[in-house]
Amino acid sequence: MEKEPVAIQDEYADEFAWCYGCGRLNDSGHHFRTKWDGEKTVTEYTPKSEHKAIPGFVYGGLMASLVDCHGTGSASLALHRKNGHEPGEGVEPPRFVTASLHVDFMKPTPQDVPLKAIGTVEEIHPKKFKVHTEVYAGEDCVVKGEVVAVVMPKTFQV
Amino acid sequence: MEKEPVAIQDEYADEFAWCYGCGRLNDSGHHFRTKWDGEKTVTEYTPKSEHKAIPGFVYGGLMASLVDCHGTGSASLALHRKNGHEPGEGVEPPRFVTASLHVDFMKPTPQDVPLKAIGTVEEIHPKKFKVHTEVYAGEDCVVKGEVVAVVMPKTFQV
Repeated sequence: MEKEPVAIQDEYADEFAWCYGCGRLNDSGHHFRTKWDGEKTVTEYTPKSEHKAIPGFVYGGLMASLVDCHGTGSASLALHRKNGHEPGEGVEPPRFVTASLHVDFMKPTPQDVPLKAIGTVEEIHPKKFKVHTEVYAGEDCVVKGEVVAVVMPKTFQV
Repeated sequence: MEKEPVAIQDEYADEFAWCYGCGRLNDSGHHFRTKWDGEKTVTEYTPKSEHKAIPGFVYGGLMASLVDCHGTGSASLALHRKNGHEPGEGVEPPRFVTASLHVDFMKPTPQDVPLKAIGTVEEIHPKKFKVHTEVYAGEDCVVKGEVVAVVMPKTFQV
């Protein structure tokens, strides 16, 4: 049996694990978890009933947050692998922040359907990655997104 | 004394007032409220302590959600005014959805500082508006955003 891949967010250092979107230590947040699936990255999440735009459809901010954290997580996965590591080894991965986020809403996102964000990572500089993401609700691609993620600068650290 | 402007979200029809970002009827949400300030549009919001990226800084998804709902609210304000109405008259305004959202993170957004999103609305088609937004934390412009908003199509309505 193949081992279930570990999410990159499970390996972030404690001080970088508080993000409302993807931090394992944030009790109120979404707990997005991003893993390798071959050469693609994947984040799965089912929005809660309060995450609505109008009844029956998910609000855009949740989709943007998913694309955002999936993007920084994917960049972290990619640089970690480039550095010779996989999640699960217990080696602290690099932590990224978002420089820019773009989201195209292709069609309304239905509620009560598990979402799957699938990412392709492109290195554009040793410390800067572009992550192309498609979010699926079942068979439908509901959102296309792009994140430019950079290694967290020291000025961001408290 | 000048009257305090009414927010466009106060005038949305009940069935369109459930958005997690800006719906007055969503008990769990942010309750973003967007008003005219002369020819600019303004949404003010102070993120909660759980809306963190790392301790001391706001997570990107909240900023994206603010830009998004500020964008659709601003487009609604603009078309409502074009139709001869201002919020407060009790006339139902047009409801917009987001076609695309772009966010540039200029610098980390500090927590515990009230945020002010300031928008400029550009009509690009009778049913399609582009909203250029700058979000300030005090004197600092922390985020620049752009939303393309379209009048809600009938297919989105349940």
